[in-house]
Amino acid sequence: MIRAGVVGGTGYTGVELLRLLSVHTEVELVMITSRGEAGRAVSDLFTSLRGHVDLTFSEPDAAALGECDVVFFATPNGTAMTMARDLLKRDARVIDLAADFRLTQEADWKQWYGVDHACPELLTEAVYGLPEVNRERIAGATLVANPGCYPTAVQLGFLPLLEEGLVYAEHLIADCKSGVSGAGRGANVAALYSEVADSFKAYGVSGHRHLPEIRQGLQAATGQVTGLTFVPHLTPMIRGIHATLYSTLVGGDVDLQGIFEQRYQDEPFVDVLPAGSHPETRSVKGSNQCRLSVHRPQDDDVVVVLSVIDNLVKGAAGQAVQNMNIMFGLDEVTGLDMPALSP
Amino acid sequence: MIRAGVVGGTGYTGVELLRLLSVHTEVELVMITSRGEAGRAVSDLFTSLRGHVDLTFSEPDAAALGECDVVFFATPNGTAMTMARDLLKRDARVIDLAADFRLTQEADWKQWYGVDHACPELLTEAVYGLPEVNRERIAGATLVANPGCYPTAVQLGFLPLLEEGLVYAEHLIADCKSGVSGAGRGANVAALYSEVADSFKAYGVSGHRHLPEIRQGLQAATGQVTGLTFVPHLTPMIRGIHATLYSTLVGGDVDLQGIFEQRYQDEPFVDVLPAGSHPETRSVKGSNQCRLSVHRPQDDDVVVVLSVIDNLVKGAAGQAVQNMNIMFGLDEVTGLDMPALSP
Amino acid sequence: MIRAGVVGGTGYTGVELLRLLSVHTEVELVMITSRGEAGRAVSDLFTSLRGHVDLTFSEPDAAALGECDVVFFATPNGTAMTMARDLLKRDARVIDLAADFRLTQEADWKQWYGVDHACPELLTEAVYGLPEVNRERIAGATLVANPGCYPTAVQLGFLPLLEEGLVYAEHLIADCKSGVSGAGRGANVAALYSEVADSFKAYGVSGHRHLPEIRQGLQAATGQVTGLTFVPHLTPMIRGIHATLYSTLVGGDVDLQGIFEQRYQDEPFVDVLPAGSHPETRSVKGSNQCRLSVHRPQDDDVVVVLSVIDNLVKGAAGQAVQNMNIMFGLDEVTGLDMPALSP
Amino acid sequence: MIRAGVVGGTGYTGVELLRLLSVHTEVELVMITSRGEAGRAVSDLFTSLRGHVDLTFSEPDAAALGECDVVFFATPNGTAMTMARDLLKRDARVIDLAADFRLTQEADWKQWYGVDHACPELLTEAVYGLPEVNRERIAGATLVANPGCYPTAVQLGFLPLLEEGLVYAEHLIADCKSGVSGAGRGANVAALYSEVADSFKAYGVSGHRHLPEIRQGLQAATGQVTGLTFVPHLTPMIRGIHATLYSTLVGGDVDLQGIFEQRYQDEPFVDVLPAGSHPETRSVKGSNQCRLSVHRPQDDDVVVVLSVIDNLVKGAAGQAVQNMNIMFGLDEVTGLDMPALSP
Repeated sequence: MIRAGVVGGTGYTGVELLRLLSVHTEVELVMITSRGEAGRAVSDLFTSLRGHVDLTFSEPDAAALGECDVVFFATPNGTAMTMARDLLKRDARVIDLAADFRLTQEADWKQWYGVDHACPELLTEAVYGLPEVNRERIAGATLVANPGCYPTAVQLGFLPLLEEGLVYAEHLIADCKSGVSGAGRGANVAALYSEVADSFKAYGVSGHRHLPEIRQGLQAATGQVTGLTFVPHLTPMIRGIHATLYSTLVGGDVDLQGIFEQRYQDEPFVDVLPAGSHPETRSVKGSNQCRLSVHRPQDDDVVVVLSVIDNLVKGAAGQAVQNMNIMFGLDEVTGLDMPALSP
Repeated sequence: MIRAGVVGGTGYTGVELLRLLSVHTEVELVMITSRGEAGRAVSDLFTSLRGHVDLTFSEPDAAALGECDVVFFATPNGTAMTMARDLLKRDARVIDLAADFRLTQEADWKQWYGVDHACPELLTEAVYGLPEVNRERIAGATLVANPGCYPTAVQLGFLPLLEEGLVYAEHLIADCKSGVSGAGRGANVAALYSEVADSFKAYGVSGHRHLPEIRQGLQAATGQVTGLTFVPHLTPMIRGIHATLYSTLVGGDVDLQGIFEQRYQDEPFVDVLPAGSHPETRSVKGSNQCRLSVHRPQDDDVVVVLSVIDNLVKGAAGQAVQNMNIMFGLDEVTGLDMPALSP
Repeated sequence: MIRAGVVGGTGYTGVELLRLLSVHTEVELVMITSRGEAGRAVSDLFTSLRGHVDLTFSEPDAAALGECDVVFFATPNGTAMTMARDLLKRDARVIDLAADFRLTQEADWKQWYGVDHACPELLTEAVYGLPEVNRERIAGATLVANPGCYPTAVQLGFLPLLEEGLVYAEHLIADCKSGVSGAGRGANVAALYSEVADSFKAYGVSGHRHLPEIRQGLQAATGQVTGLTFVPHLTPMIRGIHATLYSTLVGGDVDLQGIFEQRYQDEPFVDVLPAGSHPETRSVKGSNQCRLSVHRPQDDDVVVVLSVIDNLVKGAAGQAVQNMNIMFGLDEVTGLDMPALSP
Repeated sequence: MIRAGVVGGTGYTGVELLRLLSVHTEVELVMITSRGEAGRAVSDLFTSLRGHVDLTFSEPDAAALGECDVVFFATPNGTAMTMARDLLKRDARVIDLAADFRLTQEADWKQWYGVDHACPELLTEAVYGLPEVNRERIAGATLVANPGCYPTAVQLGFLPLLEEGLVYAEHLIADCKSGVSGAGRGANVAALYSEVADSFKAYGVSGHRHLPEIRQGLQAATGQVTGLTFVPHLTPMIRGIHATLYSTLVGGDVDLQGIFEQRYQDEPFVDVLPAGSHPETRSVKGSNQCRLSVHRPQDDDVVVVLSVIDNLVKGAAGQAVQNMNIMFGLDEVTGLDMPALSP
């Protein structure tokens, strides 16, 4: 059994991670920390976990966490970088669900997150945890930077096109829609029910932190300089990301459906739908699947890829468990092999 | 492995049953029938089941279904009663998720469902599948009438009070709220998004078919004549039932919390919350739990019980699987032991 | 033109009041105060008011507010009582949308709101602003206590029964469901979209502040000691209150429909629906109507009244405007005579 | 007073039109027809109109309708074209809220709507009712083709850029999101609450009927051949359209904000928000406004325009009333000058 600890399990990513780990047959959940809730039973805060998680939140403590085989950080950005070095020295492996180790360049971190990085020497050691690109490196990693939710949906949608050089890399558009749980569980007027229900809006058009992450990922995977316009939107639903991706074909004669199917034929968590499909976010609710479809409207030169994930699963906690499975040599689907909840 | 067949798997109860059976370790799903969708892949209709259910809908056929160990009816009211006799003769056990075998009196069926019963001789053979009341009879049953969603939430809430004779049985009030999936997956203006979203209403105040079922169940369990006012409401959510139950204490000195905890201490799927709690329907979303709390506002003589279930799980498909587990001697929680999806 | 000022226009009650006053033909909106937003254009905070309200939030100032003909308080409980005396001395009339002047007994205020009352001498001067009960007193009032949202829906539903002595007053049940805007616009985890969407729960079962207000109102209107069990619930919708009211008939032979129709035949904002109806909250969205229906299930002795309002209109800002119209001798429906927004 | 008739007032566009006309000070609503509901009181079907519309649905009758000054068609596509000629001969003016007269080329109608056009000779007589482009022609029109919802939001967003030749017209992208009321009030599984709530999806990627309408409109307004990729999406909200529009600048040095503000400075129903804004659909709920903002992320060459309308108002019934006001020489904002309902 893998002894797992979770730092900061009071947000939506945290409770989702606890849900998944509590039914994982190869994991023993040994510690959940939270400064704010220390001493409180986890199932008191999250009634849904009554009967499944018997732990009590504890103060974060590096020595105790260092006893774990793996430590997940479900914390705000900027927390994992203050503890990771210590935990790695104690031979715990670390999976950070926040952004601390996603950007490989220290200067990028400073620019987009506004503070100095606390352990820049780990930035190159960290492996970007997108299994569909980095599976082998993840298997050998001690520190995994779990991708952001938008970056997961967008990269999985663009990769087949860019890897094959089928579209102009310098002119990509990602129009993305997210459920409200992506805004976190903090007290925040903008995420109140009465503010976001029965409404729809874009946000962060001038620049969102996931932009450099996506650009870096696409460039790393394809070796091309990538120009990307990324517009996120807030949708009145709890979970789900829908990415609508636009790019322009370099040449005209190409079997898009075949290329997508081939690219992902061995991937357990990427499902290419039949030609003509429109994936719905509910088809992946609570599941680690990414479902994709590829279109070429009116046989013109614009390719439209539709990509959906559950932002809390494949976009966060589920992908973290997938990465753990890879790191510990387990079957990659262990604990993740259930259908979405629908309706 | 139990060979299971499902008749009528195209509604919400059906897809939920398929979700649960597809991950049940002791079940092999061998047949799913639908007249309307015969020949179509199940996972084509329900994208959420891609990779989990490989079957194709077939025409219902008694001979083929009779080869199953158990046949679930996820059909409209009035279908199971036309096939049950035949299947039972072929030694298949039958679990009806509709209402055909819930009322023990033929006349009650006629009055509330408006048609003659097709096999009244089975009404007494059928066991009402509320495990918290009838566990032993279910274990020996060949035909189980799976309870309705409202009746499950209401009976589990009232039972501890009535069994102990603590409240006046002739003056009960059940104010119940249901998610929209309870209205089914049929094309129906009244269940359109734009009709029910951002709104709330009561319906069926003059008389709802679950009223005689609840009354019969409470009377059978407690031996008392029961007077019940039952008002169902439609709530803008997909899943969930919340029953708010009012009754009046016969005497004043009673440990309500203790009585509820004791009544359900060995029940795997009834969770009595700590005193002062208010269960939320989301705490059971996708799970087979019923969560209860009991209140006595201002220490007055009115008892308020709050009872929540997922109408598609404990109120339908999950309870059906629980009944199957009991009928086949399996551990009762097999395939049902996962936390709710929250948020 | 009536010169109107609004104190505290940054919450949902406030923005709704601004919406209504901005189209009121007899009102000039001259001042909107907010400590937190002073100096900011109102239409910058509330984009929906662009082109309709040109004012800027200002610091609350008694001298300036005292120049108004009427001052509305759309503030948290406990604010109006600190300014009302001063404004009344300056001959401004005051309408408090919060609870400061609703309870006539100083001790009740202290018990339910936890602080001493700042001007108890005004408690008897204040008129409870339920026009359907107090129209004449409102016409002569200088200080109006605008009723709470639940109390409005519940009292309008029970009044015809209690005024005629048709039901047992000591055993009333009000099972109420509210949209989330009733929780206000403050940053609050419990009102986040991801906490309340797709879920349903009761709250405050042990005692809610609207309980004494309802009880006092029913007793004042009917002269009877009233026993009330009041259970509020939170529903995933923005606006709307649905009260389901239960009481028991004293005698059996009574024309309930006729009594309700007669009681409200001259009321512009109470609409008794045809027998057998189930009012939906959306039928009053954005409107000042209360819609009612009365049922007697199975001709038994329990009466079920269904009562819906928009909590922000008839339950707050609309009723405040209705009170203003009465106080200033205008046609009562001025500025309030538009249909609900549906769907 | 303008005597107005409405053909087909039982859908969402119809009830919205009735809401607006019922409070319009210059309109007398004299007739509402519906084959299916003939003989039923309008306010019985739409409770929200109780007290505001006293009419009863009648069978459509050209002679009676011909007595009206204006007849609105709130019917499915293909109905108005069978009656328009007759009504025009009787000197009624006609405003069609469906698509019958939007496309100027008969062949386009046949291609996209699949049937022959019943009165092609009227196609050139009809005026496309987008006041911001065709105000003068509308003033003199007897037959107005009211624009579609998507086309309204998209054209208003692209027009300032295309009219000035600022972007490449042959490579436009319109990523559009609609509330569910756009799908109409017909019984339809795909629009059920449990199908679309808490989910998000694209549809019609291969080709949507609004594509040729938008293309035609943009070409007519700007004289340029337009290449457009149009992807509509379904969002879990009742009302609202959000268009996110992408285009590429021809040159770099341009004051986008100034150009948008100048273009719409005299338009009563187009509101250009301050630079950096993100319009929310709720800011126009129930109102005839279109709110726009224009962005140039990272000062790159991609322009992003955000455009929101209420699909039932500026996208249908409100724009129809605006057109009527223009046709009859009224102040254009008559009956439309109220703020949005927010929250």
